[in-house]
Amino acid sequence: MSTHTTIPTSTPPPTDDGGFITVPKGLAKVVVTDTALGDVRGDEGFFHYRQYSAVELAEQVGFEQAWHLFERGHLPDDDELSAFTVEVGRLRVMPPELADLLPAICSSTNDSLQVLRTALSAWGGITGLRPLYDCAEEEKAAAALAAVAVTPTILAAAHRLHRGLEPVPADPTLGHAADYLRMVTGRLPSARDARAVEQYLVATMDHGFNASTFTARVIASTGADLAACLVGAIGSFSGPKHGGAPSRALEALDEIGTLDRADVWVRERIGSGERIMGFGHAVYRTRDPRSEMLKAIARRWDDPLVDLAVGVEDAIETALAELKPGRELHANVEFYAGVVMKLAGLDPSMFTPTFCVARVVGWTANVLEQSRDPKIIRPAARYVGPPPPQPVPTGTRTRQAS
Amino acid sequence: MSTHTTIPTSTPPPTDDGGFITVPKGLAKVVVTDTALGDVRGDEGFFHYRQYSAVELAEQVGFEQAWHLFERGHLPDDDELSAFTVEVGRLRVMPPELADLLPAICSSTNDSLQVLRTALSAWGGITGLRPLYDCAEEEKAAAALAAVAVTPTILAAAHRLHRGLEPVPADPTLGHAADYLRMVTGRLPSARDARAVEQYLVATMDHGFNASTFTARVIASTGADLAACLVGAIGSFSGPKHGGAPSRALEALDEIGTLDRADVWVRERIGSGERIMGFGHAVYRTRDPRSEMLKAIARRWDDPLVDLAVGVEDAIETALAELKPGRELHANVEFYAGVVMKLAGLDPSMFTPTFCVARVVGWTANVLEQSRDPKIIRPAARYVGPPPPQPVPTGTRTRQAS
Repeated sequence: MSTHTTIPTSTPPPTDDGGFITVPKGLAKVVVTDTALGDVRGDEGFFHYRQYSAVELAEQVGFEQAWHLFERGHLPDDDELSAFTVEVGRLRVMPPELADLLPAICSSTNDSLQVLRTALSAWGGITGLRPLYDCAEEEKAAAALAAVAVTPTILAAAHRLHRGLEPVPADPTLGHAADYLRMVTGRLPSARDARAVEQYLVATMDHGFNASTFTARVIASTGADLAACLVGAIGSFSGPKHGGAPSRALEALDEIGTLDRADVWVRERIGSGERIMGFGHAVYRTRDPRSEMLKAIARRWDDPLVDLAVGVEDAIETALAELKPGRELHANVEFYAGVVMKLAGLDPSMFTPTFCVARVVGWTANVLEQSRDPKIIRPAARYVGPPPPQPVPTGTRTRQAS
Repeated sequence: MSTHTTIPTSTPPPTDDGGFITVPKGLAKVVVTDTALGDVRGDEGFFHYRQYSAVELAEQVGFEQAWHLFERGHLPDDDELSAFTVEVGRLRVMPPELADLLPAICSSTNDSLQVLRTALSAWGGITGLRPLYDCAEEEKAAAALAAVAVTPTILAAAHRLHRGLEPVPADPTLGHAADYLRMVTGRLPSARDARAVEQYLVATMDHGFNASTFTARVIASTGADLAACLVGAIGSFSGPKHGGAPSRALEALDEIGTLDRADVWVRERIGSGERIMGFGHAVYRTRDPRSEMLKAIARRWDDPLVDLAVGVEDAIETALAELKPGRELHANVEFYAGVVMKLAGLDPSMFTPTFCVARVVGWTANVLEQSRDPKIIRPAARYVGPPPPQPVPTGTRTRQAS
């Protein structure tokens, strides 16, 4: 927490008017902007979307309602919800030009998130997105709605194309979460499966000013188009230090296999200096509120995986409390997210893409908010190399005539 | 310069341990990192790549030499330059899988920069890029070299495909700048044309901590793959508030038509509150050193466009000095860049993409430098909406059973 950008004594002082501001490396706690979208209170184990507890929303409302809250600023009444559901249902249908392009994109990579990155980039052109700088609010909002709506359709199609299966077209009459599951698996999900995934999605739509959200806002601050913002956000999201990987926690459960092996497994890992995936969080010093909710959702299934997960969580927390005292390492969102998604019928390769189906709501809302600020985000760096100007050595001059 | 993030009095104080740092909006002069790659001294009209004046490099060395300086940290000796030129020449050849995909990408948009965004995203999968987090330095450097090398090939192919022409394959035996011009126009450029474009490219490879460079570094800080960083950078670069557009300055010259109309034209524009494209810069309070160099390059042509540009520059500077006293509005890099590129045979639609052929060198060097810093870039935002938690209104609860 006390690692600050330090200026080596050999550095020449800035030669312009100075006034550079030294802040903690990585910009931790440096306030870049104001937001009305939400916040994370790490010490309280609480996060919120606008004025509502995110966990309470996930417990009580559907995907479209929470999405409407981000997009339009308030929870919809019945009429608004009906109209919104019809509108986004239609937008979930993939534009034919993108459907034509998708098989070729899928042949370039087996990673569905990379497919989404490439496909949304192309989608920006296909739908004729204009720079945010040139758009009125209605045009921006329409683009944001369309991008969120088409994301599950792209990801589900990529999943199926990678397996040699035909993509399943969107059904505009279904709810967003249920239709996503249907497009992935090819069959109508049970109410339990659809609602579990929907609750996971609502609980992960946004989470403070994380690196992908910040990336989207930096790009938005240049006035670029929405697709530019989203491909950058997806890029950040794919970083091992950011997105996490719900599949890793499930892999650990697979590896442990039976509850009696959990304690030995975790002590071996910690002894060899490995991180325990699915435990600990950069912001929370409490239990991760998302993890608590997902655990309750997982318990709707009478499945040995749930018993194993609950037992392993206890064993790992106990071992971590003993071996890393005072660190407050608890199960994070990854741990039960993988369990819930697996129980709901999703393949582990789709865990991170599914996270993205939710997070794109937060990204677009953040992009729209940032686009109303005229200021470009353009920080500074401190030059610490050898002092310029050194003359270019004559021996290295180009031999091309000028 | 004194616009700070202000906290409305109605805002609840942060409820965690506090310690947030308030900085100027847009992070102006906030030092995010140390860099050994270069700097801009706006008040001196000077910028440098490592320890060398960038303008001096552009005057004296070729693209491959300056690229080697960024990539390997020093100007190459003869043997290093020969080996480097052979290596990057081979890498300029487009992978066949990407060549197959490109026509479909080009049919999604007429904007070559958007094609590059989508194509580099796909290229990351095609070439099997791994997350920077998992790469040793050699693997990162190889990816960076390949990305810079293939960029002109993608852009030139996009330009030709958009016009119904066959792409011209790379010729690994040519220099990077000359081959780029050849791939765009379909004919071997004259030494004068190739060198002029090469000098423009060397002069625009990097320019401090601009928004696209910062975007690339934020994404790199998550440990994502190089393609993720570059598509984000291209996204920022495409923003109207960032990249600028050398074609706009040329359009102004077209509109003015003859020198005697320049004064009236500029006074009308300023009178109606319009910005004069190609004049003024966020950082420079002097003449833009790149503009000075490009003006000298333009003078190698005996062409009425050069006389018009020089005359119009004088007329606009004189009018701006009178109408906006003390603002120090001089021709920026855009103004003569368009003139030089047009004279060298590039279509205005390729001006910004050509800028990108250069800037990708700076992006990749910045990505590699950032990837050596273990710290993720993750700032904060201040929540300013209605205080949470408000109970979710019962009327809006989901009607789906959970």
